[in-house]
Amino acid sequence: MKNIRTDLALEAREVLQEQNQFHIPGVKVDEEEKEGVKISRVHIMSPLGEENLGKPQGNYITLEAMDIKYRDPEYQETVSTLLAQELGKLMNLNDNSVILVVGLGNWNITPDSLGPKVVDRVLVTRHIFEYIPEQVDERIRSVCAVAPGVLGITGIETGEIIMGIVQRLKPDFVIAIDALASRKTDRIGTTIQIADTGINPGSGIGNKRMGLNRDTLGVPTIAIGVPTVVYAHTIGRDCIQLMMDEFTNQAGPGSSFYQMFKQMDEEQLDAMVQQVVSRSMGDLVVTRKETDLMMDYIADILADGLDLALHKNMTIEDINHFLN
Amino acid sequence: MKNIRTDLALEAREVLQEQNQFHIPGVKVDEEEKEGVKISRVHIMSPLGEENLGKPQGNYITLEAMDIKYRDPEYQETVSTLLAQELGKLMNLNDNSVILVVGLGNWNITPDSLGPKVVDRVLVTRHIFEYIPEQVDERIRSVCAVAPGVLGITGIETGEIIMGIVQRLKPDFVIAIDALASRKTDRIGTTIQIADTGINPGSGIGNKRMGLNRDTLGVPTIAIGVPTVVYAHTIGRDCIQLMMDEFTNQAGPGSSFYQMFKQMDEEQLDAMVQQVVSRSMGDLVVTRKETDLMMDYIADILADGLDLALHKNMTIEDINHFLN
Amino acid sequence: MKNIRTDLALEAREVLQEQNQFHIPGVKVDEEEKEGVKISRVHIMSPLGEENLGKPQGNYITLEAMDIKYRDPEYQETVSTLLAQELGKLMNLNDNSVILVVGLGNWNITPDSLGPKVVDRVLVTRHIFEYIPEQVDERIRSVCAVAPGVLGITGIETGEIIMGIVQRLKPDFVIAIDALASRKTDRIGTTIQIADTGINPGSGIGNKRMGLNRDTLGVPTIAIGVPTVVYAHTIGRDCIQLMMDEFTNQAGPGSSFYQMFKQMDEEQLDAMVQQVVSRSMGDLVVTRKETDLMMDYIADILADGLDLALHKNMTIEDINHFLN
Amino acid sequence: MKNIRTDLALEAREVLQEQNQFHIPGVKVDEEEKEGVKISRVHIMSPLGEENLGKPQGNYITLEAMDIKYRDPEYQETVSTLLAQELGKLMNLNDNSVILVVGLGNWNITPDSLGPKVVDRVLVTRHIFEYIPEQVDERIRSVCAVAPGVLGITGIETGEIIMGIVQRLKPDFVIAIDALASRKTDRIGTTIQIADTGINPGSGIGNKRMGLNRDTLGVPTIAIGVPTVVYAHTIGRDCIQLMMDEFTNQAGPGSSFYQMFKQMDEEQLDAMVQQVVSRSMGDLVVTRKETDLMMDYIADILADGLDLALHKNMTIEDINHFLN
Repeated sequence: MKNIRTDLALEAREVLQEQNQFHIPGVKVDEEEKEGVKISRVHIMSPLGEENLGKPQGNYITLEAMDIKYRDPEYQETVSTLLAQELGKLMNLNDNSVILVVGLGNWNITPDSLGPKVVDRVLVTRHIFEYIPEQVDERIRSVCAVAPGVLGITGIETGEIIMGIVQRLKPDFVIAIDALASRKTDRIGTTIQIADTGINPGSGIGNKRMGLNRDTLGVPTIAIGVPTVVYAHTIGRDCIQLMMDEFTNQAGPGSSFYQMFKQMDEEQLDAMVQQVVSRSMGDLVVTRKETDLMMDYIADILADGLDLALHKNMTIEDINHFLN
Repeated sequence: MKNIRTDLALEAREVLQEQNQFHIPGVKVDEEEKEGVKISRVHIMSPLGEENLGKPQGNYITLEAMDIKYRDPEYQETVSTLLAQELGKLMNLNDNSVILVVGLGNWNITPDSLGPKVVDRVLVTRHIFEYIPEQVDERIRSVCAVAPGVLGITGIETGEIIMGIVQRLKPDFVIAIDALASRKTDRIGTTIQIADTGINPGSGIGNKRMGLNRDTLGVPTIAIGVPTVVYAHTIGRDCIQLMMDEFTNQAGPGSSFYQMFKQMDEEQLDAMVQQVVSRSMGDLVVTRKETDLMMDYIADILADGLDLALHKNMTIEDINHFLN
Repeated sequence: MKNIRTDLALEAREVLQEQNQFHIPGVKVDEEEKEGVKISRVHIMSPLGEENLGKPQGNYITLEAMDIKYRDPEYQETVSTLLAQELGKLMNLNDNSVILVVGLGNWNITPDSLGPKVVDRVLVTRHIFEYIPEQVDERIRSVCAVAPGVLGITGIETGEIIMGIVQRLKPDFVIAIDALASRKTDRIGTTIQIADTGINPGSGIGNKRMGLNRDTLGVPTIAIGVPTVVYAHTIGRDCIQLMMDEFTNQAGPGSSFYQMFKQMDEEQLDAMVQQVVSRSMGDLVVTRKETDLMMDYIADILADGLDLALHKNMTIEDINHFLN
Repeated sequence: MKNIRTDLALEAREVLQEQNQFHIPGVKVDEEEKEGVKISRVHIMSPLGEENLGKPQGNYITLEAMDIKYRDPEYQETVSTLLAQELGKLMNLNDNSVILVVGLGNWNITPDSLGPKVVDRVLVTRHIFEYIPEQVDERIRSVCAVAPGVLGITGIETGEIIMGIVQRLKPDFVIAIDALASRKTDRIGTTIQIADTGINPGSGIGNKRMGLNRDTLGVPTIAIGVPTVVYAHTIGRDCIQLMMDEFTNQAGPGSSFYQMFKQMDEEQLDAMVQQVVSRSMGDLVVTRKETDLMMDYIADILADGLDLALHKNMTIEDINHFLN
């Protein structure tokens, strides 16, 4: 697993499947399809499962909504509604719950700006509870939101900013939104992962040194992420892998080709890819030319999903009335 | 004083001068001109001065740089350098000082976006001290920066977010940047106020309920503000006042006109203005058509001034090398 | 009329009404109210009417939709629909009509960016007719759109760019969208004017030297404008006027005050206002603090209205499907 | 050549070199290095050269400025100056020349927004010559600029808009700015190509059906382009090619591997790549995560280079005074 860079538990599992490991000890998976959206639930149940998938124990729910890119308003509403349902199952909300939404990422880098964009759109209400409690509609819960920025802008580890705010506000739940990197290009802007394990160091597009999870924050922490890029390196690796498989198939396991291939190690492969994607590889990403537009509609879908999940008996229409 | 809405101590004093109060008890003022910039230092020394000017005790330094609008790079550098000098006098920095820059305001509202824009441009270094101390250049101090957002976006009082962060990071100084409202239109985008009293409730363009000052944060707090708007209401009031003065002069104090004028109270005057600037008066502001551009160059000047003040023996050129 | 700066025929008429001129020779006015929107139709029928209102002969239809600012999606749809209906009455479209939408204004100056924003959102279809005619849906007409920029960005008079394009494309209609200046602050972002006289020199927020109308372009040209600012100078003038009226009423026409007032000429009044709104008066405008947001929703309403008017039997929902 | 997608003549030549074709009939190449910038001049001299490189006859000058990414202001000025020099050699400007700068591309798609950004920054002067000739500084020439938008926004082929404008304005030169696709990732944002052949159908990131060149516009047309993306497909193809070469080397030309490889045709290779970069391949691009920032500084360099080339005896400092 170690050389595969993916933020999706679903993809970590796919990698093992590609290596013909269909039963993964310590991991339970179930899948269903609803209204054109494929929902996969990966449950990592034990330290063994943790080791096998390279992700912390917990629940990872993935919505694959391939048609999002056609930007049909009804389909978008369907995705928001399914997101809200899955989110609801992971959170035990009551009438007095206070929820802090954290939008991770860099607002100046389009494919990393998902979190800040969601913070700009989500319905916040905590100030109504605090300052004009008499105006609180009985359908709303207390929601607040921050976009803390990234290390390069603030000089402060994101985790520290959030810990400071959490210690002061004492929310009952934290929901962290982040842009992710996937392995497959067709997941860019079409897949949403919800994880009750929070954010862990090294995940997301930016670099994180500190986790945002129950251990570090002291409150249940849900992460919601959407892949917005695939690292160029991944594309290179995948192309080479595919060709090797192809030729190995054709040449057969007894062939000299197969021998040659077996002798190549990870490092040799990486060096090859590096020749193609150049020295400044680290920040090279594959994305859609229309990323700017994509970020906007994904942020809308997540904000709508959060609004539906966090408040009570409200439709998207009700929420629009509140927002405006 | 109470009906005059200004964030500048300088203007509070001007209002008294217009009423022929030239000596203000408890207040000391000195003025000088340097390289095309008028520097005024208003020192409110006592509770009496506080009451007279309607501002907390402390130092208020104003740079009036009327030529900023011509965007001459050398003049901009002059203003940044003078800002750095004045800032240096108010802060007792040593080699180990940690400074937190707070960019107040709403990034989605152009005339209120000054603070977030400065945060995006200022040189942050704290992460170098924390994570790669061996790479620290001896000329830099530890600087970090946050743009907390506004109540309507976050649902959290700005002061609470900053308190949480200050309690965790324990900086030695906080510098809060904010867009202000002035009384005079020619101060829009041309005047910089530095105050060692921090930010106090109700100041700035947005609404603040909680101060950001030594009392609330526990560390010395400097506020830097630039007027980006004049309230439409102020324009209306000033026009009426001006006309009244004119007619009173012409008609003489014994005239019936003077009598009529004397009988009008504040409320009647406000009601008159309201007829012109309409019901939704609260958010009507006077600004330059080119606000978007103006915000950018003002943010550059403030960021340069901060960089020069907070680090040691560095020129703007040195800082540009660091930033890029 | 000459000292009153307004782009709205409705306001030109109001000024006369304020001077107790209720019947204006050469001008016909009718008004109705529909679903919370006040529709006024000013028809300037003769050179006399032209002179009286200071606007070219033709039809000026104004939709006053004061509740737009609450951003209720249904109300916005109502306004778009009424706009489409009024627009339809001024244009004699047939199945083969080609329509060119011109978005005037400067995309870098928020209150002047209405035209370019509408161009970005309107449904364009001309390329389908030209390059893939077999895919043309029978409900659509051929629509194209350009945002030519402003003199300061291009170095070219906007009219010249449009003439060049019109001569090449030979559209049947031109619709020019522009941000306007009104006299009354409560019209900012709430009023839409449609005029079959096109755009005439000096109208709009930017400076125009050349008209965009049937005379200059050779095709019927409709102008759609929305006030996004009031000049600060207008506010000043109005406040002074109001106060004078007040005092004149109180003092009576025989009073010395009335005499004084009668002796003041336009120039004296302007000089007074100038003292308050400063030397750089030209670019000082009154607008909403939230202009950025306002521009977005107004552009949506206009784009929807255009889409409904220019295509056949389509709902906003149908159009959204086309756009995405 | 036909399956290699590159907009750079330099890369077309490299492809041939990689195939051990070092002398290309009909093509002359010279190279030099100046102040850290590699300048290559590819001259396609005949129809044979045209066929060999797959580009029209003419001059293609490439500046490879690998250190641009460090954003050193002095290095940026060097690049602008070299660009101005090369541009000067291709244009025969006299005191009365009128130059039209055309910024191609889509302002809403970050990696395609180079042209519009340059238009926003270049010094335009034509309006001074037209409307206030008495204020013309003797160092300036008449320059104007337009950003026509793209087919999907306007519904009009870009070439048609430009032809309309050119016919009306009759400039002496057109300079078209466009974002390009390269084959190599380290050219993203570091390489500038100047070609006196103009823009030809299919070049640039967007789709163009119509050329912008001397034939279509009737005036000499220079194209300036900077690669901002590499197509994901190119990365895939290159990785596979590299691996094949590696294995062929190791296995030798008599090996069965070599045989297998020889039997694969272009289509099979493309199909392989497609499996990795997915169905929606067309709009998948490799770019820097920091594209937003990169576009800004590249646009500055191009605008400065244009200003230096198009006016007379002016420094970047002089131009900044003019611009502000």
